[in-house]
Amino acid sequence: MKSTTEYLWFSTKDRRELINITDEVGKIVTKSSVKEGFCLVSAMHITAGIWVNDEEDGLKADLMELLDQLAPFGKDYRHHRTGEDNGDAHLKRTLMHHQAVLPITKGKLDLGPWEQVFYAEFDGQRKKRVVIKVIGE
Amino acid sequence: MKSTTEYLWFSTKDRRELINITDEVGKIVTKSSVKEGFCLVSAMHITAGIWVNDEEDGLKADLMELLDQLAPFGKDYRHHRTGEDNGDAHLKRTLMHHQAVLPITKGKLDLGPWEQVFYAEFDGQRKKRVVIKVIGE
Amino acid sequence: MKSTTEYLWFSTKDRRELINITDEVGKIVTKSSVKEGFCLVSAMHITAGIWVNDEEDGLKADLMELLDQLAPFGKDYRHHRTGEDNGDAHLKRTLMHHQAVLPITKGKLDLGPWEQVFYAEFDGQRKKRVVIKVIGE
Repeated sequence: MKSTTEYLWFSTKDRRELINITDEVGKIVTKSSVKEGFCLVSAMHITAGIWVNDEEDGLKADLMELLDQLAPFGKDYRHHRTGEDNGDAHLKRTLMHHQAVLPITKGKLDLGPWEQVFYAEFDGQRKKRVVIKVIGE
Repeated sequence: MKSTTEYLWFSTKDRRELINITDEVGKIVTKSSVKEGFCLVSAMHITAGIWVNDEEDGLKADLMELLDQLAPFGKDYRHHRTGEDNGDAHLKRTLMHHQAVLPITKGKLDLGPWEQVFYAEFDGQRKKRVVIKVIGE
Repeated sequence: MKSTTEYLWFSTKDRRELINITDEVGKIVTKSSVKEGFCLVSAMHITAGIWVNDEEDGLKADLMELLDQLAPFGKDYRHHRTGEDNGDAHLKRTLMHHQAVLPITKGKLDLGPWEQVFYAEFDGQRKKRVVIKVIGE
């Protein structure tokens, strides 16, 4: 069994962003030389998630609107008694989920025709990390 | 390490359906001859998800009602400016999540007593695909 | 390839609880002697989930409040026609997701600085199980 572990760092300009990382993940898979296996993509900070969906601006805005409707920014969360102001971001990560496992087939990410992989930042403007781990043969 | 990759195709009669695929996934696991490993089940189209829960009609209707309440069909999503009418389906996939990793133990899916695996179609009536990938030994 | 499978049992005092299982999962990883691989943590009963987030009481209360707002306990779900009263718990598991795949790097759980792993019970006070499966080398 082979394995490769890499970390992507992000420091977004805006508080909330969706960043397409499909190509970067694909390059790590190529470098790993794994032909058949799994590639885990997981946000290591607990106010960020991973989204596998469409590269379409309208949809990305719809998604962020929905999450903000369900877990509004600026609400008086109990979590804020610790001095934080990012309770919404923890909840948004939960609703979206924070990771995806991508199949690798014949040496490539085996994604559907429209599947793109996004890093979803809900409390950015500081350095945060995603782990990419490939296992297989 | 062994691996097996298969694709299930769906073309549902209704726009929204929950289809129990537990037996089909189980047969792929048996065919793979993997005794200890993981089986990834992932919806490759971005308006469908995977659900691991109960085969009970009332609950299935409750789930679909909840998702439609959170991401209503027919709403004027920004995504629809592209000509699409399925913004709700992208969001429903996100809330449900689009994949599950099933453990394989002693050659069989190691599911809980009531766990069943469903393909969740939110924008059907056309051909769509799920990838089933088994790795292990 | 090595593999290890263990089951954790829970019988919570309260109906709804979040139980930090990070240390228990870490011990299973150590025992497995896997240096590079994946650790699947999956709730086997369909009214429980797995949450990877912050060990902070306020946030944990915020999370439970959000889930109860989206899928209220005590609502007249169709699922209750079967005699059950836990429709909300099935839906809460769905919104949270029922599993996580944790990377193992250099023999340890490769978690972010604040990531903790929780068993999320939504219908407790009876024996329920989580599967922990490690694969790797």
